[in-house]
Amino acid sequence: MKKHNFSAGPSILPQSVIKDSAAAILNFADMDLSLIEISHRSPQFDAVVVKARQLALELAGLENKGYTALFLQGGASLQFLMSAYNLMPVNGKAAYVDTGAWSSKAIKEAKLLGEVDVVASSKDKGYNYIPKNYTIPADAAYVHITTNNTIFGTQFNDFPDVNVPLVADMSSDIFSKALDFSKFDLIYAGAQKNIGASGTTLVIVKDEILGKTGREIPTLLNYETHIKKDSLFHTPAVFSIYVSMKYLEWVKDLGGVAAIEKINREKAALLYDEIDKNPHFKGFAAAEDRSLMNVTFNLTDESVKERFDKLAADNGIHAIKGHRSVGGYRASIYNAMPIESVQALVDVMKKL
Amino acid sequence: MKKHNFSAGPSILPQSVIKDSAAAILNFADMDLSLIEISHRSPQFDAVVVKARQLALELAGLENKGYTALFLQGGASLQFLMSAYNLMPVNGKAAYVDTGAWSSKAIKEAKLLGEVDVVASSKDKGYNYIPKNYTIPADAAYVHITTNNTIFGTQFNDFPDVNVPLVADMSSDIFSKALDFSKFDLIYAGAQKNIGASGTTLVIVKDEILGKTGREIPTLLNYETHIKKDSLFHTPAVFSIYVSMKYLEWVKDLGGVAAIEKINREKAALLYDEIDKNPHFKGFAAAEDRSLMNVTFNLTDESVKERFDKLAADNGIHAIKGHRSVGGYRASIYNAMPIESVQALVDVMKKL
Repeated sequence: MKKHNFSAGPSILPQSVIKDSAAAILNFADMDLSLIEISHRSPQFDAVVVKARQLALELAGLENKGYTALFLQGGASLQFLMSAYNLMPVNGKAAYVDTGAWSSKAIKEAKLLGEVDVVASSKDKGYNYIPKNYTIPADAAYVHITTNNTIFGTQFNDFPDVNVPLVADMSSDIFSKALDFSKFDLIYAGAQKNIGASGTTLVIVKDEILGKTGREIPTLLNYETHIKKDSLFHTPAVFSIYVSMKYLEWVKDLGGVAAIEKINREKAALLYDEIDKNPHFKGFAAAEDRSLMNVTFNLTDESVKERFDKLAADNGIHAIKGHRSVGGYRASIYNAMPIESVQALVDVMKKL
Repeated sequence: MKKHNFSAGPSILPQSVIKDSAAAILNFADMDLSLIEISHRSPQFDAVVVKARQLALELAGLENKGYTALFLQGGASLQFLMSAYNLMPVNGKAAYVDTGAWSSKAIKEAKLLGEVDVVASSKDKGYNYIPKNYTIPADAAYVHITTNNTIFGTQFNDFPDVNVPLVADMSSDIFSKALDFSKFDLIYAGAQKNIGASGTTLVIVKDEILGKTGREIPTLLNYETHIKKDSLFHTPAVFSIYVSMKYLEWVKDLGGVAAIEKINREKAALLYDEIDKNPHFKGFAAAEDRSLMNVTFNLTDESVKERFDKLAADNGIHAIKGHRSVGGYRASIYNAMPIESVQALVDVMKKL
């Protein structure tokens, strides 16, 4: 049966990326060897890393602007720690905006290294909106935000104007819409939602912000370690980087981030329109802060739950159960999700 | 052309593991979805993690002995830091045996957290042997060794008897020969040499040694974080864990570690015998400390180098160039290497 894959992450990949990745496992670059049994320092794999890093900067419009793209291990969860290790000065302070579970985890790690000023939080309303109109203290070394909140289905539309480095966890919306990426000084994104498979994390960092904390940073947690070695300081997650390279190539071939944004807005509008029109459903997130990537909604009457779940399963709708902290439903419609699958879900909703 | 893959890492995998991994990329567990686009919390993938962890303990003979097996990200390079973070007491001290580049990197990270006593080193002879007869200071919190030294081709045969936790980096020889694994309290191994593809690292830890340092450990660097969440605290390297599960299954089906050891000893004997008999070659490592996994050797007369390299290439011999710090040649003959490929290399050596 044709599956419509709404998984929140790891999540849907373009079919061409899946096919190319399987083929590379069997025979990579005509070497008569598998992608996963060759040296990460071979010219054939080095070309993959070079291309993946170049495509990331190109799609962000950050080529030749003093930024470096890296593909590291440990997920966004390790970046919560690494970003603070590299930017929080000894006895320093940083400003964090709390928009949910992932922000909270970032805040927890940063507190190990300095003072954290939570300048705004949407906790008061169960994280169903994005805070606006907050003040960044003059002595903050950096500001940290989570641009899209997978669990709650909220997304930043406008970004704070700040005079210090702006750090963004973009794990669940990187390259999903056109942005002025040069507003950011450090961007990180686990690959498994919008740009690949799990196991690798894209980091884009403005070189000039590094080396200023006055603290000794463990080797592997220091961005400068990886920058100096062209993202190959140690054996990387070879397969995952290959998948990301192919995924970024797919985005570029489609026309880049602006082209993806157009499709993503059509997909989101189709689904939110149905949620707003259909009396069986109501949206979870505040209308002005709705995410283009994770559409969260609840039933207005729980008594139809069993029937809706069966209708969905019978029509190949995969993984729309909401996160346990929100309940209801969550349809993740990342870059690789075709509009046909969103239509399939809408058709099921109409049938209810 | 049939390739004989002597890559030092990432390195050769069993053909069945490569085929099953490619198939799972196309359709995993009859889900009509790819392995790399489903939730890491799905029952189908959870079964993979459970099985990989169980097989690791089973092959080590450590089931029901108070140990936990984890599959983490960051490679052995992150374990250099994590092992010290979890075991080095505040104001404490640890003993390290220096047997080469990897030991040195482990020592560097441990020094960030406490005093390091390098109790023995083979640096005086270019790391071509394993030090013996050293004393562990009574106040050392733990002892760290590197059981096999990929670059130099040396390997521990006997292990120090100690009264404190024994920590071993087994990245390049895990499950290559029968051992009393219960002598060790913490074992770590990047998967990409003997048990899988890059991107995941096996950690086997005796639970009772943890939680005693008196220091606050960052969330992701704390083994207890991962133990509490059954190795699924955050999104893991899904594909790499699948490959390791299949690889460990392959080892078990072959008859386990003792059966692999027999084959590994035959392979190593075949190659070392040729090195010792053939006047064109000499071994690098001290005879009694020769590695079963990485066979390092040099030419006795560099003038035949071009001819030997061409003969090797013409016969499908892949990746036998020695590490730049040693020169000469290195044939890595990990678990998955068939004896036929070792014979192919020996045949080329005989032709010289």
